[in-house]
Amino acid sequence: MSNPNPKPTLENTQLKDIVAHAKEYGFVFPSSEIYDGLQAVYDYGPNGVELKNNLKQLWWRAMTQLNPNVVGIDAAIFMHPLTWKASGHVDGFSDPMIDNLDSKKRYRADVLLEDKAAEYENAGDKPRADALLAEMGKLLTDNDLAGVRQLIVDEKIKCPVSGTANWTEVRQFNLMFSTQVGSVEGDSTLIYLRPETAQGIFVNFLNVQKSARMKVPFGIAQIGKAFRNEIVARQFIFRMREFEQMEMQFFIRPGTEMEWYNKWKETRRRWHEALGLPADKLRFHDHDKLAHYANAAVDIEYEFPFGFKEIEGIHSRTDFDLSQHQALSRKKQQYFDNDLDEATGKPYGNYVPYVVETSVGADRLFLAALCQAYTEETITEGEGEKEQTKTRTFLKLHPALAPIKAAIFPLVRKDGLPEKAEAIFNDLRHDFRLVYEDRDAIGKRYTRQDLIGTPFCIAVDHQTLEDDTVTVRHRDSREQTRMPISELGRYIGDAVSFKRILENL
Amino acid sequence: MSNPNPKPTLENTQLKDIVAHAKEYGFVFPSSEIYDGLQAVYDYGPNGVELKNNLKQLWWRAMTQLNPNVVGIDAAIFMHPLTWKASGHVDGFSDPMIDNLDSKKRYRADVLLEDKAAEYENAGDKPRADALLAEMGKLLTDNDLAGVRQLIVDEKIKCPVSGTANWTEVRQFNLMFSTQVGSVEGDSTLIYLRPETAQGIFVNFLNVQKSARMKVPFGIAQIGKAFRNEIVARQFIFRMREFEQMEMQFFIRPGTEMEWYNKWKETRRRWHEALGLPADKLRFHDHDKLAHYANAAVDIEYEFPFGFKEIEGIHSRTDFDLSQHQALSRKKQQYFDNDLDEATGKPYGNYVPYVVETSVGADRLFLAALCQAYTEETITEGEGEKEQTKTRTFLKLHPALAPIKAAIFPLVRKDGLPEKAEAIFNDLRHDFRLVYEDRDAIGKRYTRQDLIGTPFCIAVDHQTLEDDTVTVRHRDSREQTRMPISELGRYIGDAVSFKRILENL
Repeated sequence: MSNPNPKPTLENTQLKDIVAHAKEYGFVFPSSEIYDGLQAVYDYGPNGVELKNNLKQLWWRAMTQLNPNVVGIDAAIFMHPLTWKASGHVDGFSDPMIDNLDSKKRYRADVLLEDKAAEYENAGDKPRADALLAEMGKLLTDNDLAGVRQLIVDEKIKCPVSGTANWTEVRQFNLMFSTQVGSVEGDSTLIYLRPETAQGIFVNFLNVQKSARMKVPFGIAQIGKAFRNEIVARQFIFRMREFEQMEMQFFIRPGTEMEWYNKWKETRRRWHEALGLPADKLRFHDHDKLAHYANAAVDIEYEFPFGFKEIEGIHSRTDFDLSQHQALSRKKQQYFDNDLDEATGKPYGNYVPYVVETSVGADRLFLAALCQAYTEETITEGEGEKEQTKTRTFLKLHPALAPIKAAIFPLVRKDGLPEKAEAIFNDLRHDFRLVYEDRDAIGKRYTRQDLIGTPFCIAVDHQTLEDDTVTVRHRDSREQTRMPISELGRYIGDAVSFKRILENL
Repeated sequence: MSNPNPKPTLENTQLKDIVAHAKEYGFVFPSSEIYDGLQAVYDYGPNGVELKNNLKQLWWRAMTQLNPNVVGIDAAIFMHPLTWKASGHVDGFSDPMIDNLDSKKRYRADVLLEDKAAEYENAGDKPRADALLAEMGKLLTDNDLAGVRQLIVDEKIKCPVSGTANWTEVRQFNLMFSTQVGSVEGDSTLIYLRPETAQGIFVNFLNVQKSARMKVPFGIAQIGKAFRNEIVARQFIFRMREFEQMEMQFFIRPGTEMEWYNKWKETRRRWHEALGLPADKLRFHDHDKLAHYANAAVDIEYEFPFGFKEIEGIHSRTDFDLSQHQALSRKKQQYFDNDLDEATGKPYGNYVPYVVETSVGADRLFLAALCQAYTEETITEGEGEKEQTKTRTFLKLHPALAPIKAAIFPLVRKDGLPEKAEAIFNDLRHDFRLVYEDRDAIGKRYTRQDLIGTPFCIAVDHQTLEDDTVTVRHRDSREQTRMPISELGRYIGDAVSFKRILENL
């Protein structure tokens, strides 16, 4: 019998702590919480939106500023429905579902079988678990839905609600959200909310190539929302129904794809490390089974509290997408390459370019950055008899990613200290996002900034009035240094600059 | 008889030019163009996305960086459906529609009447046009849909397709897009794509106030997509079915709303002027009729080629939204104000805050910036017999808004000039978005950068190899100045800096 209330592991406890921290300190709120929420949808709070914007802007600059041959676009979420016919999503983007006739509840057939396998494994029978998963994988690959149902029956899997095995057939359920556009009965059109941003790049391939006069090899980068009607939403913001992608499609000459695939694989891994994700918590995971459009595919995985999971995919997509759009739209999706082929001495001429894609889940990257930053350390405070140890929680975010760059504190609310502190605030606010805080004891104010990852706290005290210096308290070391006010701008600017990260890529 | 092909006015010609320019030079493409487009949906191209991002980031910084009491959020597009019940959108967000029974075509009843009034006005009968519009306005205010139908019949308005007046009743048609979330038949939920971003702020009011410890008065800013199933989409990106808003809701003590309303009105007008929209092309337009939630409302209008139209609205929304959410969610949406009321000497205590909203249409602002920048001037080139006049088209964008900050040109593709130019590119690319261009004659390269609004073109010539200076060509004056390479970073940085704009707000 499986344990309905498994003891939380260290890892799950940590995710639970992070979810609570994210809500309490304004990073991530459950969506529409006053109406008891909307499943698998989340809102970013005041600190969350800044962290996410920093990640997005840094990716955008790394793509479109550092590379002279990468430009951006921002295509609409709404696209012509034929787009999704061409991409294969209308026919193939679905999950196998099964209903229990007694409870009227619907389940993902593969999840029922995975849960059963987990039960075997928890009971110590790993070989049986592996055999079940292998059998399921084979049936799904063959799209043998009757076989999947039979396996559920053979394994005596019961509905957790009704307790019966009175199952319907297994059917494919499309994961795209649809809506009607237009109002005229005969004239309204069923359209989809895009399930990926990539197609917005493909349908604009020629518009971009011509208007920006790009020469192959070149890339098109995009950041935007995508939507999937996920049946089983899990792991906080890791799998949401509404999520954001940062994708770049790199258009290349056929035959050069492995060279570019390997180049982008390394470039992208380096980028994640530059943000502060350590090398030993990142790994490449080659896809066991390639999607219909790919001839090579690898995930960059980060070790979340719930295990190594994908934060970015690098895919060699061949000419699948452009060729499909060419066939369906009857508009040539070709590029004339006037570089000379060394073998023939003639220009390469017309071809449909191949594509290497880099695709980051922005929300997953956000979660990785948050998990990586979340730090609990034991510290000792006071001396002699007053010495005590306590746990300090702080977010060790890269200063370039921190929501707030510096907090300005007048030590007390009198003696002209607030005026001095406000003057510093007003001088620095054009450059950095700051907070001004004069409530509570200064130790409490430091703690609060630790919890949201502010790298610097600037305290204005009575000495400031005499010599125009302040104390700068450093988040990670808790050390305090004295610094002239006139040096603050350059000091903070250097530490939080995107430029420092970009220069090292 | 009305003229079916009116001669284009200067203004319409100019919009047509701008639409063509936007497509040719990578600012705005029709969405899904290879599938013949999707009505009232557009994609931003490589230069468009940069211009739009600059506008968005500048607004964001002006809101959340300059004001210590304004923080941001990023709420999801998907919200609990009760949100739209509370806001009044489920019951009241609709257009009056009428069908012609012969052609089966559907029209907006008010647009049919407006077109008829325009016909009167074009024929010189302005009094009759005004009377018709006044009558229509009254009927719509009273929600007298039978009266609207009768007016259409009385005016002998015919369907342009069938030529008959065989009309159905007038019915209200809701403008929200809907979709189904979840997969279980009995368990799936009808949700809406948000028709405005404001409600994402209201439902998070307490989460933000508590997690960021905000004290009234304070604001919450947000940038995001919204969706409206517009029946009649017109004027390029001015009215789209998918569009982006930049909204800030400022929460205040009841009774102080007119003070804040007037303050934000002036602050926001100043912001538009700082971007380069001239004072004489901006005006305030008070709403003739207030929405159900407002006790004061004004539009900031810009003079587009098609007339003065709204780019931002400032609305005093009272406590309408928070009170509605409080009633429907049964969760208190109150703030405890411990400031002392001078009249009573006691704290103001608990209340539902009032709200002043500033709401910019990001796409409309983009269009205003583009229209304002689009410049045609007659210039004289050459001397003596070779003198000739021609028209120069360029985008006079504020350098902080320009998609590309500088273009780097080696004068020729030999003698080590490309290597020198590439070194400059590589040195500056961490700070600015640049282009490197070595094709075509240099005059043609200047022209191309003029057309996309690049403020500086940097030419590397043979003198550069001797003294490390380059020519900097200025977009607006076409003047060229010689400058040491070592000064480029600071010179460009100063001109394109957001900081310079923020300091003047």
